[in-house]
Formats: sequence, C-alpha cells, structure tokens
Amino acid sequence: MTTIYNFSAGPAVLPKEVLRQAASEMLDWQGSGMSVMEMSHRGPEFISIYRTAERDLRELLGVPDNYRILFMQGGGLSQNAVIPLNLVGRVQSNGQPATIDFVRTGSWSGKSIKEAARYANVNVAASAEANGYTAVPPQSAWQLTPGAAYLHLCTNETIDGVEIDFVPEVPGDVPIVADMSSHILSRAVDVSKYGLIFGGAQKNIGPAGVTVVIVRDDLIGHALPICPSAFDFKNVAENESMYNTPPTYGIYIAGLVFRWLKEQGGIAAMERKNIEKARLLYAALDADDFYQNRVAPAYRSRMNVPFYLRDESKNEAFLAGAKARGLLQLKGHKSVGGMRASIYNAMPIEGVQALVDYLNEFAER
Amino acid sequence: MTTIYNFSAGPAVLPKEVLRQAASEMLDWQGSGMSVMEMSHRGPEFISIYRTAERDLRELLGVPDNYRILFMQGGGLSQNAVIPLNLVGRVQSNGQPATIDFVRTGSWSGKSIKEAARYANVNVAASAEANGYTAVPPQSAWQLTPGAAYLHLCTNETIDGVEIDFVPEVPGDVPIVADMSSHILSRAVDVSKYGLIFGGAQKNIGPAGVTVVIVRDDLIGHALPICPSAFDFKNVAENESMYNTPPTYGIYIAGLVFRWLKEQGGIAAMERKNIEKARLLYAALDADDFYQNRVAPAYRSRMNVPFYLRDESKNEAFLAGAKARGLLQLKGHKSVGGMRASIYNAMPIEGVQALVDYLNEFAER
Repeated sequence: MTTIYNFSAGPAVLPKEVLRQAASEMLDWQGSGMSVMEMSHRGPEFISIYRTAERDLRELLGVPDNYRILFMQGGGLSQNAVIPLNLVGRVQSNGQPATIDFVRTGSWSGKSIKEAARYANVNVAASAEANGYTAVPPQSAWQLTPGAAYLHLCTNETIDGVEIDFVPEVPGDVPIVADMSSHILSRAVDVSKYGLIFGGAQKNIGPAGVTVVIVRDDLIGHALPICPSAFDFKNVAENESMYNTPPTYGIYIAGLVFRWLKEQGGIAAMERKNIEKARLLYAALDADDFYQNRVAPAYRSRMNVPFYLRDESKNEAFLAGAKARGLLQLKGHKSVGGMRASIYNAMPIEGVQALVDYLNEFAER
Repeated sequence: MTTIYNFSAGPAVLPKEVLRQAASEMLDWQGSGMSVMEMSHRGPEFISIYRTAERDLRELLGVPDNYRILFMQGGGLSQNAVIPLNLVGRVQSNGQPATIDFVRTGSWSGKSIKEAARYANVNVAASAEANGYTAVPPQSAWQLTPGAAYLHLCTNETIDGVEIDFVPEVPGDVPIVADMSSHILSRAVDVSKYGLIFGGAQKNIGPAGVTVVIVRDDLIGHALPICPSAFDFKNVAENESMYNTPPTYGIYIAGLVFRWLKEQGGIAAMERKNIEKARLLYAALDADDFYQNRVAPAYRSRMNVPFYLRDESKNEAFLAGAKARGLLQLKGHKSVGGMRASIYNAMPIEGVQALVDYLNEFAER
C-alpha cells in the first residue's frame, strides 16, 4: 500500500502515534468506562486531562508564570474579534477609541485588520502589499503608534508562506499580539516578549475547533461590555477554560500531541527537524527553473511552502500525479492559486523527501 | 465486567456504535489514507461528510427549505450573545434599542437574559422564579412586547429539569427563538413554528464544540456591525458553515449520530423510547418517599431528571454505591445540589432500569 503524506494547510496531518492512541481508547479512556467525548468537563477524569495538557504546553513553550493559557472555541478568525474586544478597553479610559497597529504581511494579517476595525482605529504601520507579500517590510519603516492598544503581527502567513523570525522592538509598553496559528510549537519562542500569542489548533496542535491563547496577566480583565461573556478572557482564565463547556475532545487530542512533542525531544528537536525539512524542499524548488517560490529567502516560512509551476497549464497533471503517489492536498489556496506544501511538525522528513523526489521527476518528464 | 451507564448532563453518553465506527476509521477514513481530523475542510472528502450530516439532520427534524442549518463553534453560552448580535438589527431601524422577550424557566434562560442585556432591552415576560423553577408560568400571564425582536425560550432547562412541551401563541410576526440544547432530537418538533432553534451538540448530537443553529432565511442578514464576522449568520450560511474552519471532527461525529438516529427509526421511534424511559424513572422517584423530584408533572423534562434524597446526609453514600455499580455522573449541578440523571437518546432503557433498581435498593437499605 502507498504511504500517504498529507500536505494540507489545516486541518492538517497529525502524528500517527496520537491517532493510534485516540483510536485505542475511544470507547474506554484508561478504564473509566467512558469515551473522552462522554465525560463531563467538570469531572475528575477530564480535569486531569486538561491540567496535563496545560502543564505540558507550558513546559514545551516555556510559558512564564505570569501568563495564562486558555483553550477557547471559535478559531483564529474569531480571535481577530475577541482580542480587540478584550484588549482595547485597557487604553480606552479617556473615552477616545483606541488604536491598534498592524503590520500587513499577507492574507491573515489583512483579515485581522478588517475585523479589528469594528472595535478600534486601525493603523497599518507597514504593509508588504507593494512587494506582493514576498518580504516583511523592514522594521525601520514601521510607523508605530505611541500608546497603541497593541501591535498585531501574523508571524507566519499560512497562505503567503511568509514567516517573521524576529521579535520587533516596540517603544513604550505596547504589547505585541502574535497570531502564531500556523507555526506555533515549530520553533523556539520567547513568550515573555509578547503580550499575547494565539493559535488555531488545526495546524500544529490538534483538531479544528480549539484555539490556544497565551496571555499575560495584566492584559486580562479589560473586556468591553459588548464582549460575549464566553469570550471574556477573565471568565475563561478564572475558570480554567471551563466558564462554558470547552471543546473537550479537541483538548484531549491536543494533549496527546503535546506529549508526543515531549517524547520527540521538545521544541528544540522539532525545530532542528523543521529547519532540515524546509531546507530540503526550498532547495529542490530553487534548483529547478520549472518551479518558483516567490518569497525572499530571509522570510520563507518553514511550515507553509507555496510554489508555482512556471507552466501553469501542467497544474492538474502535477496534482493528479502527486495524488497517485500518495502526496495529498498540495493544491494552493484558492486566493493565490498554484501549489502549497504545508510541512508541519507531524510531517516526517520522509514525506518531504517523497515530495522532493516527485518534484524532480515531474520536472524531468 | 460491570456495564457502565453514564448519566452525565453533557458532554454526555454517545451511541456505542458511533464510537466503534469512529475508532475503526480514526487513521483512515474510507480508504482516503487520512483521519477525518486531518482533512482540509474544503476538500471533497470533508465536504461530503458535511453535506451528508446536514441532509440527515434536515430529514430527521423535517427542516423546511426556507431554513438554513449552520454548524458553528462557541457553544450555547456564546449563542446567547451571537443570537441578539444577529437578530436585533432587524427591528432596530428607528435607532431605538430593540426589546427581546424572555420567559424565565430556570438557570439557562436566566443566563440568556443576562447576556442579551448587553445588546438590547430585555423584558422578562414571565418568570418561574417564585415557584422555584418547578413549573412553566401559564401562557395567559406572559407579558409579551409587540414588535419585540424575538421571544427567547429555553425549551428544556438542563439544570432545573423543566421542559416546555408546547409552542406558544405569539402575536404579530415576533419569531420564537428556542434553546433546545438538551432535548433537540429527542422529540418531534414543528420547526416551522420557530424563527430559530439552536443546540450545543454535547447532549444529544455529539461532542462539545459544535453548535447547531437552524434559522429561517428572513432572519439572516441583519447582524450588527459589532458582530464578529465568524459569527455572522450570513457569512456562515453563505459558506456552508465554512466561512472559517469549522469543528470538522465534531461535525463528523454528529453526522454518525444522525445516521444512527435514522437507523433507530428516526425521531418518532426515539420519542417513544424517551417517553418510556422518563415514565420508568419518575415513577420510581415518586413511588418512594425517600426521593423527591420537585418539578410539576406537566413540565418534567424527559431528558434531565434532577432529584433529591430527603436525607441529604446520605448523598455521598448514594453516589459511591452508584459508581460501584457502573452508574456514573449522577451528581447534581453544583448550583442546585442533589442528584441528576440525564437520560438522552443514547441512554438505553437498560441503563434507566439499572438506575431504578439501584434507587429501590438504596432506599430499602
């Protein structure tokens, strides 16, 4: 049977070991007689699952004690509203609408700008639109707002394949909010440099429907009155993500992924593998004029690798041939076309090698 | 081995057949080489899962063509905000804040009132507070508001065990919004009498993290500007619940539950079983002075049966003895104490019989 390698941008490939364990205890979690799906979120079994997941994630990312980890519903797009609803009130005491700074590096930061404009003034401090989202604008050109509610960055643009690998200098105490949805847990990160980090689970964490929010204590407790109570960070934080019923099964799978990451050697070990996987794939794309990745090398994402066939009339043949070899979900996002290989933590190097082999063979044909 | 019966109020028991199938295809859904968790929500595999689930639910509940079925994130508590954010704009054209009518029949309608007050005037048209939430106030006493945005009812109060088994007469074209979270799919319902029906999945539908919203076409498209775009019914409806990434695995499990319900004979067959289960349990509670259910018989829920031991000093012994027999999660909600047996669709009559046997034996001891 063909080995399947799934390059979906999300929901995405999960570690086989995690899926095997989930299957084996689907009807009876550790002798409880219940599926995790059937457990009260307030019972001792699920509480232990939750706390283990929280502790493992804290350990993996080195989350300081003055940050809360929240497991929320809604996804990344809803966080684009939930975050301003929670954070702009902190700087709004004079009755003037707050300002949020954005650096526009692609599709997702664009969506964030549009959503935040419902709740605050938005200032696009810099935009990569002019270069077609192929490079992050130099920091020296960012027009930041003194006293802004926060600076929002999408540190990995899933669609455009642009990754920000530095932490910018921000004057004053303006917190940085980072949408790390598509590269969280793929590389070391100094959490203490950020006010808030968030990520939809469906790339590097687990199934769709869980969103992880890591937020500094002092940013909690400023929700606007129009913020739905289920999305008020204060309610979520004070109730261990159980102010309302959390997505329990998704949290359980996320917890299995966290344990798998620890068994793999943690973030440092994953980052080494991810560097190698990305090197291998970009080298193959650059080596052959048949393919093109348009992102400047310094900003190329290690996780999401969009590329184009110079002769786009061969797209369908390329995808059909890939599928026949078990290389799945390589079609690019509908908004940009072309191809995209997402090579998250759970994608083994053998999968990248199989893709590279296919890239070479298809170009030769 | 002891047979386990799980009386959790939610997340709650699921059909064993559903869990078995989910386990068996966890690593490879129908030869696709992927887990359902790993599929792009925009790929043909998941689209087919989604459409089958939607069609089966439509068939089970007899949802008319002029209603959309949305599968959303956020849960019941967040719908308490999302619904006013979507519906009050329809009647707000004169710039005056809209009014929402509520009938307060217990804890959940109370929460809905509190949440809606962020976005509209709320009018408590009737309240069962004076009778301790043991009966629905008679319709003749409801003080409804002409031109209200809608009338909100919680047709089954999970904590208080009160069920509304009639559709009220509402003057004018004021739509009825029904929170059916804990009894959806347990009984026949004439969807056409409602403007909107919603339910968190984690009782009778599937795992926590999915919320089903059934909404009449003319109520879509009136979201307030402050409504997050991911929760705007128009965006969700126009994109088959895929405006943002939906909780794909939860929708898949819900789909398996819908198919199971069809195999069981549909809602009519389930309702017959549910009537019998409830009859059996309430008869046991009423027969022995040792136990007490405080709800007036006409309003007793078929799904959630709260009860008290007259001698509450025996609570711990009761729960310990139940657990030893495999009768799990019988502790009442922390806000009301006592016991609660939730006997959803997936609870077989054998489970209710086992509980009744234990009730009798414990009382005799």
